[in-house]
Amino acid sequence: MQNDFYTPEVQGAYELHDIGDFDLEEGGSIPGLQLAYATYGELNEAKDNAILIPTWFSGTHQTWELAYIGPGRALDPSRWFIVVVNQIGNGLSTSPHNSTGPIAMSKFPKVRIGDDVRAQRQLLVDRFGIERLALVVGGSMGAQQTYEWAVRFPEMVLRAAPLAGTAQNTPHDFLFTKTLMDAITSDPGFQGGEYSSHTEVADGLRRHADIWAVLGLSTEFWKTEFWRGIEVGDTRFATTEDFLENFIEAVFLQMDPNALLTMAWKWQRGDVARHTGGDLAQALGRITAKTFVMPIDEDMFFPPRDCAAEQALIPNSELRTLPSVCGHFGLFGFEQSYLAEVDRNLSDLLETPV
Amino acid sequence: MQNDFYTPEVQGAYELHDIGDFDLEEGGSIPGLQLAYATYGELNEAKDNAILIPTWFSGTHQTWELAYIGPGRALDPSRWFIVVVNQIGNGLSTSPHNSTGPIAMSKFPKVRIGDDVRAQRQLLVDRFGIERLALVVGGSMGAQQTYEWAVRFPEMVLRAAPLAGTAQNTPHDFLFTKTLMDAITSDPGFQGGEYSSHTEVADGLRRHADIWAVLGLSTEFWKTEFWRGIEVGDTRFATTEDFLENFIEAVFLQMDPNALLTMAWKWQRGDVARHTGGDLAQALGRITAKTFVMPIDEDMFFPPRDCAAEQALIPNSELRTLPSVCGHFGLFGFEQSYLAEVDRNLSDLLETPV
Repeated sequence: MQNDFYTPEVQGAYELHDIGDFDLEEGGSIPGLQLAYATYGELNEAKDNAILIPTWFSGTHQTWELAYIGPGRALDPSRWFIVVVNQIGNGLSTSPHNSTGPIAMSKFPKVRIGDDVRAQRQLLVDRFGIERLALVVGGSMGAQQTYEWAVRFPEMVLRAAPLAGTAQNTPHDFLFTKTLMDAITSDPGFQGGEYSSHTEVADGLRRHADIWAVLGLSTEFWKTEFWRGIEVGDTRFATTEDFLENFIEAVFLQMDPNALLTMAWKWQRGDVARHTGGDLAQALGRITAKTFVMPIDEDMFFPPRDCAAEQALIPNSELRTLPSVCGHFGLFGFEQSYLAEVDRNLSDLLETPV
Repeated sequence: MQNDFYTPEVQGAYELHDIGDFDLEEGGSIPGLQLAYATYGELNEAKDNAILIPTWFSGTHQTWELAYIGPGRALDPSRWFIVVVNQIGNGLSTSPHNSTGPIAMSKFPKVRIGDDVRAQRQLLVDRFGIERLALVVGGSMGAQQTYEWAVRFPEMVLRAAPLAGTAQNTPHDFLFTKTLMDAITSDPGFQGGEYSSHTEVADGLRRHADIWAVLGLSTEFWKTEFWRGIEVGDTRFATTEDFLENFIEAVFLQMDPNALLTMAWKWQRGDVARHTGGDLAQALGRITAKTFVMPIDEDMFFPPRDCAAEQALIPNSELRTLPSVCGHFGLFGFEQSYLAEVDRNLSDLLETPV
């Protein structure tokens, strides 16, 4: 199915790597799994300057490229070889709408955070011969993957920086994600996942976007009308409703419903304690990476206290809370102050000998 | 339309008072407006022991009766004459589903907070000859009405206690309420408000309930599994899903969709600055009541800082933040510690000479 949102023209250039047939933790498999990834900088001869960035819910490599990576930044491509990998089901890597046959659309299998991490490892080893990562950094579902990496392959992860996410998904997050999913699946145009265009699910995608507006930002974002300072091209926004409709809804309305549902199901079940029979302390105790845990102070569904409780269980870690009136969507980098704080923390982390 | 939820058998006894034909601020009128109210205690001869309690979204007089009013409590019926008035459209007072003819169901007119307060004044004056209230206290939309009372009829309100609510609705609250409304109206069974039974809108009511589960409680409520301590009759709950389905969804599934929408529209537009051309400081400056502003510390959509900002504009006021891991739904009085704190504050307030 064609969806122009998931093209290099919109998302920026990326490569595809064929992982081969890939067995999934929840059962079933993806034939010829394709991971879409983008790289910045050069891998050095020692192969010790690699940084991995997994993507968040509904996100692609693009935000990282535009907001976090650049010369003079902590994630400087002149020093580091940075690999941003689009998560399975995000619309660029193998996803329901770009698959055919037995895994197309509603038949797409359930994918777990662990599947992404195992596939990413294959990409890094097979494609680049990378055996050790100077840093894994990701936000939200990217933080879930970062934790999974650090617990599952501790020998490969020297440093870890989970932003605005948890190692074990919380019950509140599970319920929040359920409202997002139900907003989509309740649209008669969804047709059990067998719509013929994502535009048939516009009402559901709009309701899904509206719930994001309530939880993804913060009460203070809306109160202070922070959106007045947000520019898209030459466009500014005049009212709350204008920003809601022409920014938040407009972004989500371009996306594929089955892609969002694949990611949401995965997000709901992120849990490193699956490796230790449910013992979170034991799982996080396995982490050998120097770890900076970075919640966002105004995050309404990954609140700092949830992240701090996990940080306390990680041997060689620090809590570095990020300031953003944008709440969880602070991740998009609307504020220079936020980006400067991320850079300071990542620079500190990258300079820490391990 | 019959709905057993809105009966004395379920809600406890109440009286009806006929206000007569009632013109609405937004235009239109309600012929023979009936206010459903319940009283506790006796009005003394001086008529100076009256306390008014307006109800919150989806609520009735019942929660106040069961959780807040009783001998030895701040709201002691042996000392005070307590009048709990069900808001217009709540299912007991005149509402879409219990109206006929030109205001039935989808034709029910838009009602504002100010309409409720004017109607309540008529009830108090005409039915009881009450000219002065020792206290107005209400939670959430009841707080909106409390503020409206104190700004609109300052000479009648000696003391005011808005719990977990604001005088001027916030943009975030507006958007949150929108998601609640859209969850209902998007159900094909809603049929533009002309369903033949609320059970036809079960899917929409369930999604509405699920959004409440995410915002009405708190991340910590779910994390600590506070629901394990909640008993309904002899029933306890075994899992998050069990509590969601058999408590939160079960409660909202009994309600009338048009009633919820009438209240939600009203909630979105609560704003005392309508009396002062948009100047909130000027409006709140009119309050002469001794006022205790009582936000709930874990409230996700009436956060303490929003309430504190308004309290700072009220001449003779104090901020008394209430502790509740239940967030906004702390209002239901799940915790003795919360109820004790409310009682302590209301006792202090009622003992303050004015």
